[in-house]
Amino acid sequence: MAQLRIALAQTNPTVGDLSANAERLIAWTRDAAERDAHLVVFTEMFLTGYPVEDLVLRTSFVDASIRTLEEVARRLDEEGLGELPVVVGYVDRAGLAPRVGQPKGAPLDAAALLHKGAVVTRTAKHHLPNYGVFDEYRYFVRGDRLPIFRLHGVDVAIAVCEDLWQEGGPVAVVGQAGAGLLVAPNASPYEKEKDDVRLELCARRAREAGCALVYVNQVGGQDELVFDGDSVVVDAGGEPVARAGQFKEELLVVDLDLPVSDAEPGSFPYDAGDGSTITVERLILSTEPVAPYTPVPTPVTERLGTHAEVYSALVLAVRDYVAKNGFQSVILGLSGGIDSALTATIASDAIGPSRVNVVLMPSRYSSEHSLADAEELVRRQGINSQVVPIAEIVNGFEKEIDLSGLAAENLQARVRGMILMGLSNEHGHLVLTTGNKSELATGYSTLYGDSAGGFAPIKDVPKTMVWELSKWRNAHSDPGFLLQAERPIPENSITKEPSAELRPDQRDTDSLPPYEVLDRLLDDYVEKDMGSAELIAAGHDPDLVARVIRLVDVSEYKRRQYPPGPKITPKNFGRDRRLPITNRWRETTT
Amino acid sequence: MAQLRIALAQTNPTVGDLSANAERLIAWTRDAAERDAHLVVFTEMFLTGYPVEDLVLRTSFVDASIRTLEEVARRLDEEGLGELPVVVGYVDRAGLAPRVGQPKGAPLDAAALLHKGAVVTRTAKHHLPNYGVFDEYRYFVRGDRLPIFRLHGVDVAIAVCEDLWQEGGPVAVVGQAGAGLLVAPNASPYEKEKDDVRLELCARRAREAGCALVYVNQVGGQDELVFDGDSVVVDAGGEPVARAGQFKEELLVVDLDLPVSDAEPGSFPYDAGDGSTITVERLILSTEPVAPYTPVPTPVTERLGTHAEVYSALVLAVRDYVAKNGFQSVILGLSGGIDSALTATIASDAIGPSRVNVVLMPSRYSSEHSLADAEELVRRQGINSQVVPIAEIVNGFEKEIDLSGLAAENLQARVRGMILMGLSNEHGHLVLTTGNKSELATGYSTLYGDSAGGFAPIKDVPKTMVWELSKWRNAHSDPGFLLQAERPIPENSITKEPSAELRPDQRDTDSLPPYEVLDRLLDDYVEKDMGSAELIAAGHDPDLVARVIRLVDVSEYKRRQYPPGPKITPKNFGRDRRLPITNRWRETTT
Repeated sequence: MAQLRIALAQTNPTVGDLSANAERLIAWTRDAAERDAHLVVFTEMFLTGYPVEDLVLRTSFVDASIRTLEEVARRLDEEGLGELPVVVGYVDRAGLAPRVGQPKGAPLDAAALLHKGAVVTRTAKHHLPNYGVFDEYRYFVRGDRLPIFRLHGVDVAIAVCEDLWQEGGPVAVVGQAGAGLLVAPNASPYEKEKDDVRLELCARRAREAGCALVYVNQVGGQDELVFDGDSVVVDAGGEPVARAGQFKEELLVVDLDLPVSDAEPGSFPYDAGDGSTITVERLILSTEPVAPYTPVPTPVTERLGTHAEVYSALVLAVRDYVAKNGFQSVILGLSGGIDSALTATIASDAIGPSRVNVVLMPSRYSSEHSLADAEELVRRQGINSQVVPIAEIVNGFEKEIDLSGLAAENLQARVRGMILMGLSNEHGHLVLTTGNKSELATGYSTLYGDSAGGFAPIKDVPKTMVWELSKWRNAHSDPGFLLQAERPIPENSITKEPSAELRPDQRDTDSLPPYEVLDRLLDDYVEKDMGSAELIAAGHDPDLVARVIRLVDVSEYKRRQYPPGPKITPKNFGRDRRLPITNRWRETTT
Repeated sequence: MAQLRIALAQTNPTVGDLSANAERLIAWTRDAAERDAHLVVFTEMFLTGYPVEDLVLRTSFVDASIRTLEEVARRLDEEGLGELPVVVGYVDRAGLAPRVGQPKGAPLDAAALLHKGAVVTRTAKHHLPNYGVFDEYRYFVRGDRLPIFRLHGVDVAIAVCEDLWQEGGPVAVVGQAGAGLLVAPNASPYEKEKDDVRLELCARRAREAGCALVYVNQVGGQDELVFDGDSVVVDAGGEPVARAGQFKEELLVVDLDLPVSDAEPGSFPYDAGDGSTITVERLILSTEPVAPYTPVPTPVTERLGTHAEVYSALVLAVRDYVAKNGFQSVILGLSGGIDSALTATIASDAIGPSRVNVVLMPSRYSSEHSLADAEELVRRQGINSQVVPIAEIVNGFEKEIDLSGLAAENLQARVRGMILMGLSNEHGHLVLTTGNKSELATGYSTLYGDSAGGFAPIKDVPKTMVWELSKWRNAHSDPGFLLQAERPIPENSITKEPSAELRPDQRDTDSLPPYEVLDRLLDDYVEKDMGSAELIAAGHDPDLVARVIRLVDVSEYKRRQYPPGPKITPKNFGRDRRLPITNRWRETTT
């Protein structure tokens, strides 16, 4: 056996910012070198950020990725870091002739090994995910090489992300060819309670490959995706030996005892067990094991509880959406209700209360407690606020056009949306919308009204969880949150009955069932894709099933116009659910 | 040789409306029977409509598709149409065990042969397109069967859509196995000047298969897609012998002389030439050739010119979006400028002027000719109009919040958007937005202002083509257009200099280069994906390249919030172009 110290760079790249990502690679490699690591592993497509979507079909973008990789290899050497091998993801291209159906330029979701100023070897993802948030058949051709490099006597194999998830392919070949360690750069987005699946997967693949496995995951918000980190190292038996925290950057350093190899270098084809052939490329960096040393203690960070996890995901998503889009501040309408209260709190935790601006926009139908509860939140959090009454503006419209019923209700919501957008345009704030998932699902919102804005922090949070998260946040904090206030959310906002206050004495329950009933039904219909018969068999009220399905099915267009928001469930009404708008299929008519 | 009369049902199904599509199948089959056809061929996924996107991942939807297919076979027989064989597309499922990465339920883009009340044989698309507007790896597993049925002595093979476009697979197998005719149900969306490619493809595949080819294409608008029909029949030498019109439904009946076969029935595996095996299933409906008869004359419809073609696509797209979404009428803001003038004209042609409502919303910056030109269009077309001045409403906002510059300009556009949305909510009109592609590309529009609405008819039409189409429409008509007026667009709207009129003496050229320069550059950058260096090498001004690329790259978010609109180019800023929003890649920094 031989010792190796591996550094897992759980980092937050920015999509498209190749030079900044390259600088970050050098800085983190220096940190790893200072901690005496023998190998640094970055995440999937770290140099370009992930996912890059249609950018990868631009020749100039792929050129820039390849050029940046070669430059960063040279830079590492110039800065005295050339002796430390680095595994990093980037975008490359396969040298394939164009053909119908093949992505333009035949791009590869690639990873490379950098050492002594050069790109020593390259590989690419073999299994291309094309489900959920992934569209990789659109963007990439598949890789068919598995590099195994000898480092201080230990054979280290490289496989990318999805190659762990599907059967056959690189992991199966590692099991046949033999290696002492498998390192896997990943960009695996957060989903509520997905983590145990990941650890279980790593354990299973380590046993299948017959070696320890280093799983390095991206962290950070990228539009609707939130990457949670939670990088992990398991031994050859599948037992976890190191684990990084969630939703924060971390250089996780771990010492491993690994088997020494004397296999011959060269190229060897293997049956990948999925109908394809993978060529193993064995190469040697160094054969001599490192001199024995005392291992450092390794953190095995405990996972967060559900509420801490979801809340942290939302905070990180807002922070990164603001920063990566170049905004300095946010603005939102504060009604006194729980949705906008929670959204303001997430924003304060994400970017600090001094950069959060709220507008209180009372109408003729606003109750007294609305303004009072909103003002109480402003006081508790120390955010910036202003009051803009909307009654006179609404009157101005009603003098010119006759609106009644829902049209008149929508007008009030739209006047508020326009005030926020006007202030956003004038002062450069990003507008946050405050709608929750239960509203979005049922269409209980106003197009160009409360749905107007740049980012929707609680878009994927059902109303019942809005209350749970609010209570949780009032009872908990975290060093990563930038708001220091105790109990930042007024209790009355949590406990009072929800109302849109767009007509006299309006209550959400005038239009919707109680949220605890609605949210259970929405979960079964939207997330689990149950049909009408299944929903009734599962105990939901048949009339309610028909009513709610109709609400959901006809709200597709409205949801399509909603701003992006962080995804925390399998189906966040963003890129995960794609339905034709002019569609007459109704689940209830089957 | 034996005669066969084939009916190509170039039809317009509605996505999800299985019962209406089934009724339509029966009605069209009756029509084909009355015209003494021996075989009717419907389009790809006709029973479900195409594309159905995530609906196909619902068990209940696939169940309904299969059930509808079986019901419609029985219904045909009950109605005395059972003797006439029908080929029709629908959704089926493969009986595969679930695995990671495989679409839920393993759906098939299937086609079936119906005869004498039964489903005689089934097949499914082998090549799954996953580029441009297609995401079929997400939705389908691939088929591996090729049915060849004998009809009056002639062997007829069935292949679905993309199987014609890619090398190897079913067409190659037809060439090896031998058949007298290949019928191909399609759902191939319109793209400007794509048609010759299709005919050339059909000719090539007919020669490769060694038999005549019947290509039946869907017609109609489906959200952003417009299917143009243009169904075609080519003989075994690739010469066109029949062709249907574009953008309208048509039962195209053609008489063919085809070789008689006596090949044995049964199952035979073939190497498909693409690494897979396809099983040919030979079966026999009838061996006796039909008694000789006099063929009917066959139309070989001439293709439309570019402007007629694009304009017809836009008219059909609007007509179907209105109808399939259940609207009775549309509303739009009429400024006196050319974009709203053309949009109103398209709407009048699509649904008739009596169902078109326009609102003239002059502001303090509107010039006199604006109102006069708008009123002249109303007079020429006989559409419904009202005038709603916005100055007082804008004043109402400005009393409450201080806005200047762009924020003040946006406010005016948003007040107009709110008036249209209010009237839409009150009266049930669909709001049409009037922005053109040059504006969208450069971000020269107001979020929640002129971009507010349900459908954007000229979203994919560059400004220079807006003028061309306007001139073309003033000089041409078509029996399919519902507006009878001569020269429906006031000449002054076409000839005057474009202005947004949101501040005194504003001109588009204050912010943008001349449109003929801009549109050429946008075409090279957006449609052809040229990089900065290529653009400059192609003769574009370097400063302008940098400026326009920046405008396009930072407008991604704004475009994402735009309503759907008909696609007429490869990249319509809808589902064809997918870029991360939080992206720092700038083509100009390479």
